[in-house]
Amino acid sequence: MARKSDSLHGNAPDTCPAALLIIDMINDLEFEDGRKLLPGALRAAKAIAALKRRARAAGVPVIYTNDNFGRWRSDFREAVDHCLHDGVRGQPLAELLRPEKDDYFVLKPKHSGFYATTLDTLLEYLGAERLVLAGVSGDTCVLATAMDAYLRDFELYVPRDCTSSVSGAGNRSALAYMKRMLDADTRPAAQLDIGRLARRRARGRH
Amino acid sequence: MARKSDSLHGNAPDTCPAALLIIDMINDLEFEDGRKLLPGALRAAKAIAALKRRARAAGVPVIYTNDNFGRWRSDFREAVDHCLHDGVRGQPLAELLRPEKDDYFVLKPKHSGFYATTLDTLLEYLGAERLVLAGVSGDTCVLATAMDAYLRDFELYVPRDCTSSVSGAGNRSALAYMKRMLDADTRPAAQLDIGRLARRRARGRH
Amino acid sequence: MARKSDSLHGNAPDTCPAALLIIDMINDLEFEDGRKLLPGALRAAKAIAALKRRARAAGVPVIYTNDNFGRWRSDFREAVDHCLHDGVRGQPLAELLRPEKDDYFVLKPKHSGFYATTLDTLLEYLGAERLVLAGVSGDTCVLATAMDAYLRDFELYVPRDCTSSVSGAGNRSALAYMKRMLDADTRPAAQLDIGRLARRRARGRH
Amino acid sequence: MARKSDSLHGNAPDTCPAALLIIDMINDLEFEDGRKLLPGALRAAKAIAALKRRARAAGVPVIYTNDNFGRWRSDFREAVDHCLHDGVRGQPLAELLRPEKDDYFVLKPKHSGFYATTLDTLLEYLGAERLVLAGVSGDTCVLATAMDAYLRDFELYVPRDCTSSVSGAGNRSALAYMKRMLDADTRPAAQLDIGRLARRRARGRH
Repeated sequence: MARKSDSLHGNAPDTCPAALLIIDMINDLEFEDGRKLLPGALRAAKAIAALKRRARAAGVPVIYTNDNFGRWRSDFREAVDHCLHDGVRGQPLAELLRPEKDDYFVLKPKHSGFYATTLDTLLEYLGAERLVLAGVSGDTCVLATAMDAYLRDFELYVPRDCTSSVSGAGNRSALAYMKRMLDADTRPAAQLDIGRLARRRARGRH
Repeated sequence: MARKSDSLHGNAPDTCPAALLIIDMINDLEFEDGRKLLPGALRAAKAIAALKRRARAAGVPVIYTNDNFGRWRSDFREAVDHCLHDGVRGQPLAELLRPEKDDYFVLKPKHSGFYATTLDTLLEYLGAERLVLAGVSGDTCVLATAMDAYLRDFELYVPRDCTSSVSGAGNRSALAYMKRMLDADTRPAAQLDIGRLARRRARGRH
Repeated sequence: MARKSDSLHGNAPDTCPAALLIIDMINDLEFEDGRKLLPGALRAAKAIAALKRRARAAGVPVIYTNDNFGRWRSDFREAVDHCLHDGVRGQPLAELLRPEKDDYFVLKPKHSGFYATTLDTLLEYLGAERLVLAGVSGDTCVLATAMDAYLRDFELYVPRDCTSSVSGAGNRSALAYMKRMLDADTRPAAQLDIGRLARRRARGRH
Repeated sequence: MARKSDSLHGNAPDTCPAALLIIDMINDLEFEDGRKLLPGALRAAKAIAALKRRARAAGVPVIYTNDNFGRWRSDFREAVDHCLHDGVRGQPLAELLRPEKDDYFVLKPKHSGFYATTLDTLLEYLGAERLVLAGVSGDTCVLATAMDAYLRDFELYVPRDCTSSVSGAGNRSALAYMKRMLDADTRPAAQLDIGRLARRRARGRH
């Protein structure tokens, strides 16, 4: 959407045709279904951690797209600190996916990472045209973000081992939907050549 | 913002780095200050009509960005028909600027052409990165649209003879603001090489 | 969101806590899967026509939320006329659901009725806090609109006989998702007391 | 816009018909015109600090609506810490307006506080229908935020001693515009009965 401003407003240093969105993994899981979500989320966290290492090595920006969990006053780093405390149910996820200094983050108030956030603007400045989505829950926030990304013409990758939901059937159904209706590539992360995503231009780029 | 969808959704045939937005000129002027607005609006309509001819000759898409005037049920063509009736105060404007078959239009509910409309999406599909704004009122809808265009990093042209406001001082002040703060080029339409705008890429394009 | 403007901008005469959205039923169905979609869409059209009559009798605003099908230059009424022609596959749908003079309409460029349209603004002016969604396809545009409505805290009704998709399994899966994850009431239209929806305030209204 | 969700998403504890937006006052002023902006910004900071005390005493939520200054990776608290360092030009502003534990904040990537941020959603959850705007610069970010607030039908207060711009003439012109065209009340902060704003419903509330 038009030229990049040269003012201080909105500068973002990296440019890359791909970006990795890590959705709601900084999460204390201290809610009703959190216990049920934990085992699958932990498996996903391990796969995402490996994917994130490869993304960073390939120069792909990593964007923590995370719920504010109703804490409009807190910072993301505060949320990270909160989740790193012993005894917090989601602590192992935060350990595995501790944000690094040059990761980006976007706090979202609702399910979709695009709703009422700066994500769209950030992705535009990054020049991203394809998104790799990973995180929880596959059938809520990941799906809502995928649908909004599809509306905005992003090419989608949702590695099936990098997402999880309270219900296994719900997760499979969401993945099937994203594959069939949103043209998402759902192959497991290990089979994704993220370096290639970072180099190649998107298929239908205008 | 990412690749163009190949689905039926959102196709738009033309692509051009420039677009001409004609703002609120399809307007019956049947409101309190309409009488005061008429003479200046008529002068602007003549300049816009000439500019529009040159824009079309150069392949620049023309987008009527027009208030719905509270008629959520009507079509733009209905609004045009309404304004073409004898005795309607704004009838001469509509005569001068009668939309042609391949002009675009966007109905807006509020002042800015970008607020709660499809304008942003249409401009993206057109590949527009610079906008020529023309219409009324210079210090309300044109200014609000210019500010929103600036936020979105469009290069701006607001030919000073193609806009008018109820207050002459208000119009001059709005033009001065757009020039100084929004980097708008405000030279008169006759001095604008619209063919060049249509060919040249924008200055800071990403 | 804040006070209603008293300017001409954005007036909308009706107010009602409920609104009926008829999604993509003005549709020539002249695309690849249109033939498969026709029988189910026709059954849905009959149910929607009956529901629409009851909605109008109860004073519930009816909003045609319809794809522009890539025709950025056309009006909705032009789309209606196009679909009313003999030989057009979607002609029987348009016959059954011919818009009436005081129906509203919103042209959408993408799947969700909320994306890059004035729908949100119109619903705010109408005071709507619950939405009845009907139309095609259940697993694309209806689902995308439902997800966006849920993000915006609308109470949702998606009568299961008023929607259809190319794939029956896809339609059932989308309805199940809307019921389970978006709190949508999916009872058939005949069991919906639309007069009550029009009178009662929404459950969690702020 | 519809009922408040009872999910964790988007909870915000306070509700009040008024909110105070402090715009870009957490600002190192380390840019070209920062030196020129400092004296007026400092005078404004003093007036805003007093207004903020009264707002908090009256239960009016305070929202720091602040530029991210191109630092997509930083937190607002990091920005505050950065500005509190000795030798930073904007340090006295940050000292006067140090955010308190229960203040809100919204990081914006562009001029308007509403563009690509969560501000609209937060204000909806707070139930705000009138906004008091304060900060810098009067003729850029304050004006852009005011225009967007006006489009959204908020009642506006822009105390003229709580804003400043590089150019005094530019600031006066922006204030005059907001008063005349956006119905903003621009009386000095000391004459503003903020307790009354917090109690009274807005004039045109729907």
